[in-house]
Amino acid sequence: MDYILILDILGVIAFSISGVLSSLKKRMDAFGILIIAFVTSVGGGTLRDVLLGLPVMWMQDMTYVYVIFVTTVLAVFFRKKLSYLRKSLFLFDTLGIGLYTVVGVEKGLSQELPAIICVALGTMSACFGGVIRDILCNDIPQIFRREIYATACILGGLSYFVFLKLNFPDSLIFFLSGLVVIIIRLSAVIFKISLPSVYKKDEDIKDYW
Amino acid sequence: MDYILILDILGVIAFSISGVLSSLKKRMDAFGILIIAFVTSVGGGTLRDVLLGLPVMWMQDMTYVYVIFVTTVLAVFFRKKLSYLRKSLFLFDTLGIGLYTVVGVEKGLSQELPAIICVALGTMSACFGGVIRDILCNDIPQIFRREIYATACILGGLSYFVFLKLNFPDSLIFFLSGLVVIIIRLSAVIFKISLPSVYKKDEDIKDYW
Amino acid sequence: MDYILILDILGVIAFSISGVLSSLKKRMDAFGILIIAFVTSVGGGTLRDVLLGLPVMWMQDMTYVYVIFVTTVLAVFFRKKLSYLRKSLFLFDTLGIGLYTVVGVEKGLSQELPAIICVALGTMSACFGGVIRDILCNDIPQIFRREIYATACILGGLSYFVFLKLNFPDSLIFFLSGLVVIIIRLSAVIFKISLPSVYKKDEDIKDYW
Repeated sequence: MDYILILDILGVIAFSISGVLSSLKKRMDAFGILIIAFVTSVGGGTLRDVLLGLPVMWMQDMTYVYVIFVTTVLAVFFRKKLSYLRKSLFLFDTLGIGLYTVVGVEKGLSQELPAIICVALGTMSACFGGVIRDILCNDIPQIFRREIYATACILGGLSYFVFLKLNFPDSLIFFLSGLVVIIIRLSAVIFKISLPSVYKKDEDIKDYW
Repeated sequence: MDYILILDILGVIAFSISGVLSSLKKRMDAFGILIIAFVTSVGGGTLRDVLLGLPVMWMQDMTYVYVIFVTTVLAVFFRKKLSYLRKSLFLFDTLGIGLYTVVGVEKGLSQELPAIICVALGTMSACFGGVIRDILCNDIPQIFRREIYATACILGGLSYFVFLKLNFPDSLIFFLSGLVVIIIRLSAVIFKISLPSVYKKDEDIKDYW
Repeated sequence: MDYILILDILGVIAFSISGVLSSLKKRMDAFGILIIAFVTSVGGGTLRDVLLGLPVMWMQDMTYVYVIFVTTVLAVFFRKKLSYLRKSLFLFDTLGIGLYTVVGVEKGLSQELPAIICVALGTMSACFGGVIRDILCNDIPQIFRREIYATACILGGLSYFVFLKLNFPDSLIFFLSGLVVIIIRLSAVIFKISLPSVYKKDEDIKDYW
């Protein structure tokens, strides 16, 4: 499954760099930057594994630790050049969440959990690292306010079970449902689609309660 | 145990709505609102189960997921009317923390943990969802500064062990100690009782350290 | 191993008091202060145990609960005098992180994890309590921006494996690697050493991305 490893590493690279950038903005020291990069990359998978009572993935496989470390050092060193990588990083990130969503769904299935819980686990695997990054940087999590991101994971996760019902072969399901995440996320950004707002213009929420 | 299921659902409804309201105030998108409602409802029980190394309750029982989803959709849709429900929601919330405290205490007992730890687990089950809600919304957790809330859970949890010592039958202990939480919480709000302040008027803490 | 118990208690005292001080600054109520003291003291070990899938240490041993409770009550009561204890508390804190680092490393080793993971677990045990304290108090975690602190734990953890390679006896490894943490931390504070900054003067990070 070499191509999965490559996707995984690209995802970790994109996630680490997003962690580095958030922490640089908060003027953290070298240690803080490394931790934020690490947490952004593996936070989602860690939460998933802890909730499932499974061994935590980055303790079993040192690849994550090495990739995050090297990425972080390079990203700090070449931080002025990172804006040139903007598009590549966006692409890696999108490949990453596609992969992590499907991996999360499959880990849930291997524990014989209901479909909705599997979709939640997949979305969590893909998105929660960014949530912890924002909490540690004392920001409101971006994905709670941003364009289609988690929603792409949810829809991709749901598509997994549609393909499963259709009796597609396993590897095709894996590939297609990851692709659903990626296509939705790319379309959302390219065509500037966002969730329909639940707010009216100038609506003031504070008075309701 | 039908009546317990009803209490549980009323509690989840109250917790979800408090999550919806917090996230609306922060102008989150539909996904963010749903996650905050979910985390507020099940966060406490999840932490308890993870600390105990037990399967996480909402993965075993889809009722939570359905109730939270429906409540969230309705609460967003009818958010302007929620202020009319103010009193009912306060009551549901109070019933909820009464129930969760006792359930948490009993889960601790089933693992043969000491009484103080069981009380801590009960309080955590009841209160921690609100803590994660406030962290995700980038606020200081309300229960660390608010009127008697966690304190009601602690006292109710302690009363559980008093009733146990008195050799009351199991179902009576369950009922009475939940009632202790509820009565203390209701009295505190009705009679505006709060913990004695540890601060003197205009005391400036910053200089001490 | 009486001397280890004493170090452990001194560490818990220092950590509890740092929690009390943070929560007083945020004007929390008595319950909030106690929770922050508790979380600061045991947060790191709890995360370590949850990640390893081991029983959580403070549920097994009531010493932590008692020490934290008594320390918190005394610290709130005598908070105006705490500044006189400044140096002692700094020393206790330093002894504490030395001990927790080594205990964390050894817990990782007992699960046959790779050296780097063990060092991460040790650092986490020593530092994560303070991170949760700062999150709950709605601050950016201090250790991500502060002088040598986590770095001392990392270097101490690494030294553990150097001493292990050198075939030192177990108890000497325990002692020496804890000492490495303590000496680095003390030197850093006394000689005002900090990590080399990754930032240039007046560097504006916001424009990069």
